[in-house]
Amino acid sequence: MVNHAPIGVFDSGVGGLTVLKALRAALPAENFLYLGDTARLPYGTKSPTTVNHYALSAANILVKQGIKLLVVACNTASSVSLDSLQQAFYPIPVVGVIVPGALAASRKVKHGPLVVLATESTVRWQAYSKVLSQCAPELSVIEWPCSFLVSLAEEGWCEGALVEAIIQQLLSPLLDPLFPKPQGILLGCTHFPVLKGAIEHVFGPLVTVIDPAPAVAKAVTEKLTELALLNLNLDFGQLQCWVTDGLERFTRVSQVFLGYPLQENVELVTLG
Amino acid sequence: MVNHAPIGVFDSGVGGLTVLKALRAALPAENFLYLGDTARLPYGTKSPTTVNHYALSAANILVKQGIKLLVVACNTASSVSLDSLQQAFYPIPVVGVIVPGALAASRKVKHGPLVVLATESTVRWQAYSKVLSQCAPELSVIEWPCSFLVSLAEEGWCEGALVEAIIQQLLSPLLDPLFPKPQGILLGCTHFPVLKGAIEHVFGPLVTVIDPAPAVAKAVTEKLTELALLNLNLDFGQLQCWVTDGLERFTRVSQVFLGYPLQENVELVTLG
Repeated sequence: MVNHAPIGVFDSGVGGLTVLKALRAALPAENFLYLGDTARLPYGTKSPTTVNHYALSAANILVKQGIKLLVVACNTASSVSLDSLQQAFYPIPVVGVIVPGALAASRKVKHGPLVVLATESTVRWQAYSKVLSQCAPELSVIEWPCSFLVSLAEEGWCEGALVEAIIQQLLSPLLDPLFPKPQGILLGCTHFPVLKGAIEHVFGPLVTVIDPAPAVAKAVTEKLTELALLNLNLDFGQLQCWVTDGLERFTRVSQVFLGYPLQENVELVTLG
Repeated sequence: MVNHAPIGVFDSGVGGLTVLKALRAALPAENFLYLGDTARLPYGTKSPTTVNHYALSAANILVKQGIKLLVVACNTASSVSLDSLQQAFYPIPVVGVIVPGALAASRKVKHGPLVVLATESTVRWQAYSKVLSQCAPELSVIEWPCSFLVSLAEEGWCEGALVEAIIQQLLSPLLDPLFPKPQGILLGCTHFPVLKGAIEHVFGPLVTVIDPAPAVAKAVTEKLTELALLNLNLDFGQLQCWVTDGLERFTRVSQVFLGYPLQENVELVTLG
């Protein structure tokens, strides 16, 4: 593995672009190869067996390109498949989003409850609860499925009265006065950071909303530093984007998640 | 092919249950085998090549079971893959939802505009426009993509003020006073019939909203009669439901689309 080799970033679709954005901000000299498995999205409503099968075959495409590190920028795949990916692609380091996100939340939220908003599959796997029971055993954690927010984000509906009304309806049990008021909300799906402002409005200023992406970027930086694999080039790194289906939709929707138009061409790759 | 052989009904997921419901009402003595390709849903945001590949492999599972007729209860697959399915499985008759739906709409809507609400893939394929240009060349047709309504329906959000506000926002260009007022709305996705009441509320009593499902059931009845393949048994027929992933979710969400709880066990089948 060489220092100028790209970092592979893998997601089921466009949501992982919120993680890519944080990675590029933290590591501007690095080259990135992003793969969105758009032919088989969403992962978040599918079974662990299916997610595992999809994650391994999609990540394999990146590994074949000689990446120096793999970021699993999808909460569902990180929950279900991190161990399998680490074993399958050893010695390539594989960083998921769950552990960095859980550690960041445990630093910011001391008493709880901490509500983890995530897809059905991530919640069923209890990935955040498992990590948090180790690093913050006192913290009360509630994992809450809300896959519908994925569609809302992909529609580009990120703010405004209607979006807040939808969030209020979807999360109404958490807003019930009889429910213990959350101290923090962890965005346990890479689609949700684009809804951060709206979620903050709905829950009010006393609730801390945490996007794991900066913590993931920090974990990747530390891992590359530890392995002496940082790209020491002074120029800006390159980005390549690959999808397994729907070029046009990916390019159009990407702006919602990156916050700026994608400058690079997106290429279609075929799954074996 | 024998008369008591099942009718195969194929969809990308749960939406096709609205068609199955109409089929069972029209043909109570028939046996049905329903397959939801939930491992690879949704089809509606994916490319024609991918949809074609998925539709052929999923329908093949039903054909292997000795079905006497195949209903493609998915607008996207009917748009993109009907010809391929008819060729691949000849002489088994294959009935899609587009032609019956378009014919039903052309009987009810004479002047237009007729708005077809559908997924991105169905709209891109212009399947309804193509059929309607043949059977009702005078009719002005507007195909309108609104895949987000799929998520709304799957969430079980079918009626009420918030649902109507979402529909209003999503279809706001069609509701603009400067836009020619639609005479009819065709529900060009099998998920949408559960939103029929809300869509009628939003557009008002002068707009006819058409669910193609009864017309599909009529087309199937006619085809079976023509081929002398009706099941002449006097008992109620059996239903078997198969999915390629996510048994629990399918069973839970099915009630929204059937309008009653699914009595039958759902079984998981593996794609080759």
